Amino acid sequence: MTMEKKIIRFHLQLLLIVFCMLTFNSGNKALAQNKTQYIRIANLVIDTTQLETYKAALKEHAEAAISKEPGVLTLYAVYDKDRPSHVTVFEIYASKEAYNSHIQSPHFLKYKDTVKDMVKSLVLLDVIPIALETKKHN
Amino acid sequence: MTMEKKIIRFHLQLLLIVFCMLTFNSGNKALAQNKTQYIRIANLVIDTTQLETYKAALKEHAEAAISKEPGVLTLYAVYDKDRPSHVTVFEIYASKEAYNSHIQSPHFLKYKDTVKDMVKSLVLLDVIPIALETKKHN
Repeated sequence: MTMEKKIIRFHLQLLLIVFCMLTFNSGNKALAQNKTQYIRIANLVIDTTQLETYKAALKEHAEAAISKEPGVLTLYAVYDKDRPSHVTVFEIYASKEAYNSHIQSPHFLKYKDTVKDMVKSLVLLDVIPIALETKKHN
Repeated sequence: MTMEKKIIRFHLQLLLIVFCMLTFNSGNKALAQNKTQYIRIANLVIDTTQLETYKAALKEHAEAAISKEPGVLTLYAVYDKDRPSHVTVFEIYASKEAYNSHIQSPHFLKYKDTVKDMVKSLVLLDVIPIALETKKHN
């Protein structure tokens, strides 16, 4: 095989890799909206005097869960602008099993222990998706 | 320039394109959590007799907004499993300006007109992020 042919062959392989990367990306987006997902909204009221400590603990926990657990897909935690002690977490898990595994993880148990005296009320809602639309790399 | 050199040059250009694509992808994730974002939670109660029609209209609207408007980043619309007429939408816009532009878009105006007799109550909450953690391709 000539040098030229070798380069062309390598070139075609590279194009194939790019094509596969693009296909993989679109595949993942579709996967995100499959029917095994378990979605929940947590509504919490936090002790006002411990709000900053609570928010730091929740942020640390969310970062750990998303980076360490393949089945924890989204944790969007926010507080009301007009009532900062009211916190909402929008949670998407790959499945009910992924959620069950999540609540036994070391970072979740650490979070629960840290915040046990900060949370004045907690309401958990199981929800069903109507539309889960997001920009691909949001 | 020989044929071989031309191929090598083209090859290097292709590698540069792949590198740029990868850089662009990681950049977008960081961008998603910047401070100009405008985030809102909409809590709605829908007329039970028109629930299916409402859900179809909301789904169509969310798909249009995400695909047509660069500043509409996330629209996660769900209903309570135990109270199906209670709908929640978690909304992330790139900025307040993106939101202002969104509510003047043809698909939003069409949605509002379609559902005007279906929505029994609507509460809008401005919220501030604590953590917006998501898998990259969720």
